[in-house]
Amino acid sequence: MIGQGEDAMRPVVMHNPRPADQQLVAGLHELGVATVHEAQGRSGLMHPGMRPLLDGAACAGRAVTVLVPPGDNWMIHVACEELRTGDVLVVACTSACTDGMVGDLLATLVAAKGAAGLVIDAGVRDVRQLRLMRLPIWSTAISAQGTVKATPGSVNVPVVCAGALVQPGDIVVADDDGVVVVPSASAGAVLEAARERAAREEQARARMQAGGPALGASPAMLQRLRELGVAWNELEPR
Amino acid sequence: MIGQGEDAMRPVVMHNPRPADQQLVAGLHELGVATVHEAQGRSGLMHPGMRPLLDGAACAGRAVTVLVPPGDNWMIHVACEELRTGDVLVVACTSACTDGMVGDLLATLVAAKGAAGLVIDAGVRDVRQLRLMRLPIWSTAISAQGTVKATPGSVNVPVVCAGALVQPGDIVVADDDGVVVVPSASAGAVLEAARERAAREEQARARMQAGGPALGASPAMLQRLRELGVAWNELEPR
Amino acid sequence: MIGQGEDAMRPVVMHNPRPADQQLVAGLHELGVATVHEAQGRSGLMHPGMRPLLDGAACAGRAVTVLVPPGDNWMIHVACEELRTGDVLVVACTSACTDGMVGDLLATLVAAKGAAGLVIDAGVRDVRQLRLMRLPIWSTAISAQGTVKATPGSVNVPVVCAGALVQPGDIVVADDDGVVVVPSASAGAVLEAARERAAREEQARARMQAGGPALGASPAMLQRLRELGVAWNELEPR
Amino acid sequence: MIGQGEDAMRPVVMHNPRPADQQLVAGLHELGVATVHEAQGRSGLMHPGMRPLLDGAACAGRAVTVLVPPGDNWMIHVACEELRTGDVLVVACTSACTDGMVGDLLATLVAAKGAAGLVIDAGVRDVRQLRLMRLPIWSTAISAQGTVKATPGSVNVPVVCAGALVQPGDIVVADDDGVVVVPSASAGAVLEAARERAAREEQARARMQAGGPALGASPAMLQRLRELGVAWNELEPR
Amino acid sequence: MIGQGEDAMRPVVMHNPRPADQQLVAGLHELGVATVHEAQGRSGLMHPGMRPLLDGAACAGRAVTVLVPPGDNWMIHVACEELRTGDVLVVACTSACTDGMVGDLLATLVAAKGAAGLVIDAGVRDVRQLRLMRLPIWSTAISAQGTVKATPGSVNVPVVCAGALVQPGDIVVADDDGVVVVPSASAGAVLEAARERAAREEQARARMQAGGPALGASPAMLQRLRELGVAWNELEPR
Amino acid sequence: MIGQGEDAMRPVVMHNPRPADQQLVAGLHELGVATVHEAQGRSGLMHPGMRPLLDGAACAGRAVTVLVPPGDNWMIHVACEELRTGDVLVVACTSACTDGMVGDLLATLVAAKGAAGLVIDAGVRDVRQLRLMRLPIWSTAISAQGTVKATPGSVNVPVVCAGALVQPGDIVVADDDGVVVVPSASAGAVLEAARERAAREEQARARMQAGGPALGASPAMLQRLRELGVAWNELEPR
Repeated sequence: MIGQGEDAMRPVVMHNPRPADQQLVAGLHELGVATVHEAQGRSGLMHPGMRPLLDGAACAGRAVTVLVPPGDNWMIHVACEELRTGDVLVVACTSACTDGMVGDLLATLVAAKGAAGLVIDAGVRDVRQLRLMRLPIWSTAISAQGTVKATPGSVNVPVVCAGALVQPGDIVVADDDGVVVVPSASAGAVLEAARERAAREEQARARMQAGGPALGASPAMLQRLRELGVAWNELEPR
Repeated sequence: MIGQGEDAMRPVVMHNPRPADQQLVAGLHELGVATVHEAQGRSGLMHPGMRPLLDGAACAGRAVTVLVPPGDNWMIHVACEELRTGDVLVVACTSACTDGMVGDLLATLVAAKGAAGLVIDAGVRDVRQLRLMRLPIWSTAISAQGTVKATPGSVNVPVVCAGALVQPGDIVVADDDGVVVVPSASAGAVLEAARERAAREEQARARMQAGGPALGASPAMLQRLRELGVAWNELEPR
Repeated sequence: MIGQGEDAMRPVVMHNPRPADQQLVAGLHELGVATVHEAQGRSGLMHPGMRPLLDGAACAGRAVTVLVPPGDNWMIHVACEELRTGDVLVVACTSACTDGMVGDLLATLVAAKGAAGLVIDAGVRDVRQLRLMRLPIWSTAISAQGTVKATPGSVNVPVVCAGALVQPGDIVVADDDGVVVVPSASAGAVLEAARERAAREEQARARMQAGGPALGASPAMLQRLRELGVAWNELEPR
Repeated sequence: MIGQGEDAMRPVVMHNPRPADQQLVAGLHELGVATVHEAQGRSGLMHPGMRPLLDGAACAGRAVTVLVPPGDNWMIHVACEELRTGDVLVVACTSACTDGMVGDLLATLVAAKGAAGLVIDAGVRDVRQLRLMRLPIWSTAISAQGTVKATPGSVNVPVVCAGALVQPGDIVVADDDGVVVVPSASAGAVLEAARERAAREEQARARMQAGGPALGASPAMLQRLRELGVAWNELEPR
Repeated sequence: MIGQGEDAMRPVVMHNPRPADQQLVAGLHELGVATVHEAQGRSGLMHPGMRPLLDGAACAGRAVTVLVPPGDNWMIHVACEELRTGDVLVVACTSACTDGMVGDLLATLVAAKGAAGLVIDAGVRDVRQLRLMRLPIWSTAISAQGTVKATPGSVNVPVVCAGALVQPGDIVVADDDGVVVVPSASAGAVLEAARERAAREEQARARMQAGGPALGASPAMLQRLRELGVAWNELEPR
Repeated sequence: MIGQGEDAMRPVVMHNPRPADQQLVAGLHELGVATVHEAQGRSGLMHPGMRPLLDGAACAGRAVTVLVPPGDNWMIHVACEELRTGDVLVVACTSACTDGMVGDLLATLVAAKGAAGLVIDAGVRDVRQLRLMRLPIWSTAISAQGTVKATPGSVNVPVVCAGALVQPGDIVVADDDGVVVVPSASAGAVLEAARERAAREEQARARMQAGGPALGASPAMLQRLRELGVAWNELEPR
């Protein structure tokens, strides 16, 4: 979680009028989580407990963040009012929570707002209905456990969600490999680096299909391993 | 686990001749875990580690409980003799266990008895065959680890299964959201409350599809947030 | 959790005027968790995540139970009003929670009521001060994370705490080995069985100090192992 | 992990020219993990955190092992050069790691070598593409987290992978139930025992389909339970 | 972890010449983690897996941050060069790691620099010697597992450490209750709020020692519970 | 676990008449776990969940191994008969188990045999008494949960204990940092390498006490970081 210091001393709902650059969003979406994560220096990745509700789910969009207390989904309702078409709603909790904070009603609203997806460091419920809806969802739990609407939180403040810092307006990219966060200011540079990486990987793929060797077994790399002390031997029969 | 005190000082197999009220069972089944859980005051839910073997699985029925030592499935064999059509077999262990206590043979027997489902706070195995069978199964693990038949346990005693108390004869409801336990004495009242809740949710769904606001963002609730100190502001560009 | 069914549909504070039998409490306290747990058929034990704040802590007393939502300690305040001298306050949450629900203020009150101890399936904080106080405490976490006072719960209802069912009025025994729960109705029989076990163990201790053999290596047991297929061999040099 | 003692004092790549007996491999593959595990005395099973990337995946083959530092996939590249048709690549780490050590490029190479499968006690990434490939994969995590190529490890040394010892040349069998390891020297005896077990289970299946009783509820076993102190009673109405 | 976007695309060592305000540091240190955390709106707390190596340890100081790959402690060596008297070294990993990244040699250097403490989201080793040294240490693991010096990371960049955002120059406060992070810009306001809270708690302590009632059981709060539907009843004998 | 293949198809008790070289044992004991682990190539370490019951505990000795089913301590009784003065009893389970498999009676016997210590990948109980005894103990849990004596296991077979392979006769070294296993055949070479490492560390310690730089911040290493792309910059005020 986050919202540290003086800013966190009073809950707040921030309105973020700045849209994301849709070309950057589309480009990052197409390249996918693993490539984008590599392109920005192996940073910005949520931890592997954040999983999609459905295999094959993928989305990208501007982050609308919300920070809620454990077991209380009130501010998620409020955050929905800040959603615009193409946004990704990012839910973080002030302490670890697996309760089912979003069910089919809230998900219906998130979808009605035109959101691109939902990323929540807590549980979801009504998953049969959620899977039938078009909304891509990533969560750290599935649980029917109900929540209350009793305690305020904050909307569009910086949060730590599943171990990654998310600033409101960041671009969130999510697919089968997990969820990665790209700061809006660097999204252009990250996209460019990601495209270069993807091009290089395309070449490597042909070499792999032909039987290699992989980069780490190239003559230069094998030579380096020998310098580092690795020996090659024949295995004796046991 | 459970079976505390004097009752637990000697293992026992209890025969429960009282059937469940099939109309109550059918009604609770139709409403599903999340709604039933809410209707009984957000209680009776097993923890989120209890997951279905197949997406879309759902069942409800009278609980036949069995309490076994870790790594020993003997008493599950005995418990099968107490199963009647429509029952749900609920397996709890005296300490944490992931071993594959039920495989295709036992599952075949459970299905042959006409049971509605199996809920086990341990592992299952032969999962390819289990998925091909018609029996809905919830477990906290998948593991090929074999078990012994060496130490007694008890059948149809109160147990704690995945964090929820289950009395023999309780109604167990299970679906994609997890597993909830309804005491038989209160099943009627719970069903009524669940139906009322489902009706209210149906109305809310239309409002969500129209773009909200959600309950927590209604004018009254927003006013309450302001009284609790929440401020609304515009986000400054970074 | 617990408080299932109709009873759970409305939060309630139950007053329990029946004191525990102090001779039973004293006897169970003296024998300790491991022996009491064995004497009641290896039942009633909380899971091993429930640990004492200080090595050497031990207590026993009548359970006053409280069930609270995650992140909300309001009802613990209310439960303190039900504490009598010698009681053990048992706190359970409706879903998993590590927040610091009890700090030095609440602990000071629990101690002022003359309680024998505190058992909480959540976190505690101000642990430096807690360790300086005389109150024995068992918890599943240590965390400074603060909580709210916003949502009701129930006092003196049956709860599942760290995997064990606790009824109000049960006798709770806690020491370095963990926490065990003894139903009041069977406490006399459990105490008697525990004393017999302790006496037998005293004899065995002398045999162990003399170098054994342990029970499982007695001639009869070794013979049984041979019948079960165990072989004795010399290890070959590798 | 492994490679203890003097052997581990210098990293090494061992070449293993001895193929597996393909008839043994085929036989063990057909019988599956649960039966093979039982047939070799309930041993050799990886822990249940090792899961297939796709339901229904199954493979068997000669183990080519590789031991890598956390966050470093260099030696997996080198290990690929030791893969022959039908092999299973087994990746172990020197300490716990969930990073995405294998992605679609490495998996393409593993498949191009004709490997039967991949078993990795760490994460994989590019899982959408991996699921489209024909290569069966078992892993303990899914993560986009990238890795480096900086530190040597060893190929075809004994490793502990997900709690199971794997010697190079062992036969690895994997399916929906997990992964089991069979030492090559005993594979023939294990296969024979597994076939006997499978035949016995086939007979038992017919009895289960007819409604039992299961072995543990046979007259002799029920008699044994009575001798062990189990009582049979009628449940009183509550 | 962190260092997202373009900034993260190249590793960097930042020199931070701005000292912390030592009066603020001393004030926050004296008030302790739980009070400071409350005073800044229950924010900035690391998760409860971050524990002190010794009971009673406490420190506060300016954060010098370092972000390292799992299993690689090279950059911690580099970060030591940025330590000034009174600083707290904060170590975060790019993915989960329990390896023993700091042992007695590095700890000796950290102490020699006059650092106030060490906070590491990974393991430490040589703990017997570490406990004999004067340096307060918080870690998420104890492990002898050795690490390499092969891959760069960054020093004095924003990091997520044990779930909390730490900016270089933030004030870190740590004691038996865990670790909390206070942004330098708001440290004055947080200190003031913390002092007010501590004063209020002092008054409450006297009331608790006198037997209460606690705030949540004040007449007004009990009335509010009644309005929320809580009932008071006598427990029936079972 | 272990004891794979044909050897595992029948339980066995192996007698190991070969004593350990007491000079090697004493030397490894003196150098400690972290140094020995490094000296044998960062191998042989149990995972960090294996913790000493008492701070400051340390031991080394010849491994007597025992493999038991979960919840069953029968074979530990049998293994005690194989203990000689100076041995370390190493207990592994066939699947994950936290039950209290060893209490004060068994520990008394282990101590009476003159064993140097006990290492168990499961729980212990009677910990107050265990702490009063002289026997150093490492375990992965503390639990009062009782066990049965119903199912055979094996003594002095290879086992995987807390992720490390242990062969009977290996030298086990344990202290505050955890537990490491040294194969007897390589113990001499490992000891020599460990002594060399300890001597080098002694020199480094003086440099650290003088304020460094640490090895990773030596001029050559800093130059290497620059070649790898690390930049040095001044932090801008926020």
